Amino acid sequence: MISQDELYMREALIEAKKAEAEDEVPVGAIIVRNGEILARAYNTREKDKNALHHAEIKAINEACKILGGWRLVGCTLYVTLEPCPMCAGAIINSRIERVVYGAPDNKAGAFGTMINLTDYPLFKPQITPFILKDECSQILKSFFKAKR
Amino acid sequence: MISQDELYMREALIEAKKAEAEDEVPVGAIIVRNGEILARAYNTREKDKNALHHAEIKAINEACKILGGWRLVGCTLYVTLEPCPMCAGAIINSRIERVVYGAPDNKAGAFGTMINLTDYPLFKPQITPFILKDECSQILKSFFKAKR
Repeated sequence: MISQDELYMREALIEAKKAEAEDEVPVGAIIVRNGEILARAYNTREKDKNALHHAEIKAINEACKILGGWRLVGCTLYVTLEPCPMCAGAIINSRIERVVYGAPDNKAGAFGTMINLTDYPLFKPQITPFILKDECSQILKSFFKAKR
Repeated sequence: MISQDELYMREALIEAKKAEAEDEVPVGAIIVRNGEILARAYNTREKDKNALHHAEIKAINEACKILGGWRLVGCTLYVTLEPCPMCAGAIINSRIERVVYGAPDNKAGAFGTMINLTDYPLFKPQITPFILKDECSQILKSFFKAKR
């Protein structure tokens, strides 16, 4: 029996695989609202030559355009890797209500691993970690192993 | 005698005033490299209906385009208000070497006030706080006072 969170994380993994195919660090994200996938995105930092172009930032940008406002009320973000401080801050700023992530980020994870931004008096999304953790970690490990 | 940091902060304040004139929370930023102002930006979150459109993010986006890469090596960012976690994270991700800010942000300041992201094992920009603090605070206070 596969959970709804796992089903949506598989969609985020499809995005991560698009990044991998373009030789980008394989991270993918989707934003879901009322059972509908509003936005899909993957990391394109190298191709775009832009430090902001993480999967989460691109998905939030798209969702703001689609919903026509900066408050992403009722939205859940699924992302294959734990958000960094930039992306966690963008999630908080956009009032995304729930974040589901796959692999922990030991170097920059900002929702529980390196730091937890929900410990501070900011808007606090609900965090569900480690959904399809093994698959989400493995795609990153394979990418970095091939790079060495 | 006015310092170079004060001169550049005056340029960031010019940007903040553009935000104020458009009824946006008045925060402005510039990015300087080798004595040249590479990018100028101000907060347009409401007009753009986009949670990402803080002054710093817009300036970093512009500087990445101008320099043609995601590493903003040798760059200093001047901003009238202490960066929030999203913007502080973007500064770290883009390898901006130095950040000069004006007013502290008691609610969301991520370079020393609410939290200090330079306390963690991430890239650490050099931080110079409180340049033209009074002017940078005053423009925000006046804006919020007029809103009440």
